[in-house]
Amino acid sequence: IIVATGLKPFDPSSVDLHGYGKLPNVVTSIEFEKMLKEGKIVTQSGKEPRTIAIIHCVGSRNNDYHEYCSRTCCMLGLKFYNQVRSALPNSHVYQIYADMRSFGKGCEELYAETAKRGVMFLNFDQREGIPQITKSDPEDCCEMLIEFKERLSNTNIEVPADMVVLLVGMEAREDAKEVAHHVGVSKCGNDFFIERHPKLDPVATTTDGVYIIGSCQGPKDITDSVAQARAATARVLATITQGTVEVEVTTAVVNEDICCGCQTCVKVCPYTAISYDEEKSVSVVNEVQCKGCGTCGSACPTGAIRARHFTDQQILSQIKGLLTTEMTEV
Amino acid sequence: IIVATGLKPFDPSSVDLHGYGKLPNVVTSIEFEKMLKEGKIVTQSGKEPRTIAIIHCVGSRNNDYHEYCSRTCCMLGLKFYNQVRSALPNSHVYQIYADMRSFGKGCEELYAETAKRGVMFLNFDQREGIPQITKSDPEDCCEMLIEFKERLSNTNIEVPADMVVLLVGMEAREDAKEVAHHVGVSKCGNDFFIERHPKLDPVATTTDGVYIIGSCQGPKDITDSVAQARAATARVLATITQGTVEVEVTTAVVNEDICCGCQTCVKVCPYTAISYDEEKSVSVVNEVQCKGCGTCGSACPTGAIRARHFTDQQILSQIKGLLTTEMTEV
Repeated sequence: IIVATGLKPFDPSSVDLHGYGKLPNVVTSIEFEKMLKEGKIVTQSGKEPRTIAIIHCVGSRNNDYHEYCSRTCCMLGLKFYNQVRSALPNSHVYQIYADMRSFGKGCEELYAETAKRGVMFLNFDQREGIPQITKSDPEDCCEMLIEFKERLSNTNIEVPADMVVLLVGMEAREDAKEVAHHVGVSKCGNDFFIERHPKLDPVATTTDGVYIIGSCQGPKDITDSVAQARAATARVLATITQGTVEVEVTTAVVNEDICCGCQTCVKVCPYTAISYDEEKSVSVVNEVQCKGCGTCGSACPTGAIRARHFTDQQILSQIKGLLTTEMTEV
Repeated sequence: IIVATGLKPFDPSSVDLHGYGKLPNVVTSIEFEKMLKEGKIVTQSGKEPRTIAIIHCVGSRNNDYHEYCSRTCCMLGLKFYNQVRSALPNSHVYQIYADMRSFGKGCEELYAETAKRGVMFLNFDQREGIPQITKSDPEDCCEMLIEFKERLSNTNIEVPADMVVLLVGMEAREDAKEVAHHVGVSKCGNDFFIERHPKLDPVATTTDGVYIIGSCQGPKDITDSVAQARAATARVLATITQGTVEVEVTTAVVNEDICCGCQTCVKVCPYTAISYDEEKSVSVVNEVQCKGCGTCGSACPTGAIRARHFTDQQILSQIKGLLTTEMTEV
């Protein structure tokens, strides 16, 4: 099973200060991308915007929304600038950013090139407050005013804009919990799926045969998602060409005589390997899914579920054996 | 063929202002990593440093050295801080950075956590000059002084330090040219190998059967390198399980009667598919490596080398045919 459920863009309606949904010309990066695709960058009144402000880290790197970095927005902001520059050569573009994260191949070069082409970079600190967007007065020659503390000059400034593009962050999909339960993978605090090892096994999960790729395991760009997709393919191909699949031998076994049918084990099993047999009123272990982790055994109130080859008797005998040897050595 | 030749750390000796190689307690991140591993963070005189300064972007994001971002150093700087904090709880640590790029999963969280633990972040702008490290006077209670323009406060400041860690960037290996020629892959301006498509085919090259993974194609962390390694495995496995390999049909052919043996085609072929037969004094095409790109044909002074199925006569006939049809339609 390859899980590639992707992501969901952050909904900026909840960020009061940005006025998304209230001010007509505050748009998300997704909406702006559509405008660019259609070749029509116009305000709601049909005019070409003279000033466009691009606000970075909307919903990202902020304790009130998502603490993590969404990894792709900075580059999107630079791309937008260059596309606006081609479409509306006389417009002014502001990039209101926290830290400029252009870390990919060729990205720093694009950043340097963009800086030379006349974009205005303004820096803000999330901890000192996010930019506040308000409708301007009729006598101002712009649609909106953006107010924030500019970090580099350490002054409160007001930026005019006819259109504001919010670079919205990436977040986990709403059905992440359901998917996680269904395929037997774990989720981190931000609802992204957890890989078996963050460095050494980035696409596998602790459940054999289940792989997670792309943004469902954390924000990721196209390059990294494609590499991950092919990585998961390698794992699947390796299993297929091998012909047979080895499963865990230390699976859990239920002593049906003692099992009281409380289903505690069903709830705690991290691999969704235990189900409940309604007819017999006992728990049943799926030996293919069980990894022998022992969680069920420690939670069972009657001691009915135990790991095969690891009975209490066997463990006690081993301890006894060890102690005897040590005493002989001393 | 999977090319995974890795990278080379930037040698900071060429950065005069940092004084690496002259001042005894200016060390690279690699040297500091070794100290941490051995559990001995001591200056050359054997004392524990009271103040450690970590300088980011050494050799990276700077037009005088490498323009690109090395992608991993910021995280390394944060890791170093936390390790120093455990080993020497009473020491002071400065992080002198450009933009803090903690974009990976869990990295922003580490950054926020580190900031709370009392590290001093100081910002500098590469374009306004890099930090200058000098030996301090005997009456100062530190080994060195670091002088630079702090961007956030817009003031020239002096930071004391007993030890300076230079977070050196990543660069391509010296033998990149040789490897590229040997396996038939192209290099970018920074000597990293070029992938077939930066987004859609990140581990393949334009030469069939040759894959590039990890930092030999651009700075990369362990997670991304492992994902790429597995991705290349998928490509290789797919070819193996298929059983047969299809090669290009439009390969170049040499008319031995006309070939003057000048070897121009050997030099220009981007796939190293042409060699020179010394005995016959003519060029020979390796049909497995040839991609029928036509570069050799356009460079050949005698017209001896041509793409099969694309002779001048055939192309001229096609043009003639097209013109006839168009005239009929008009």
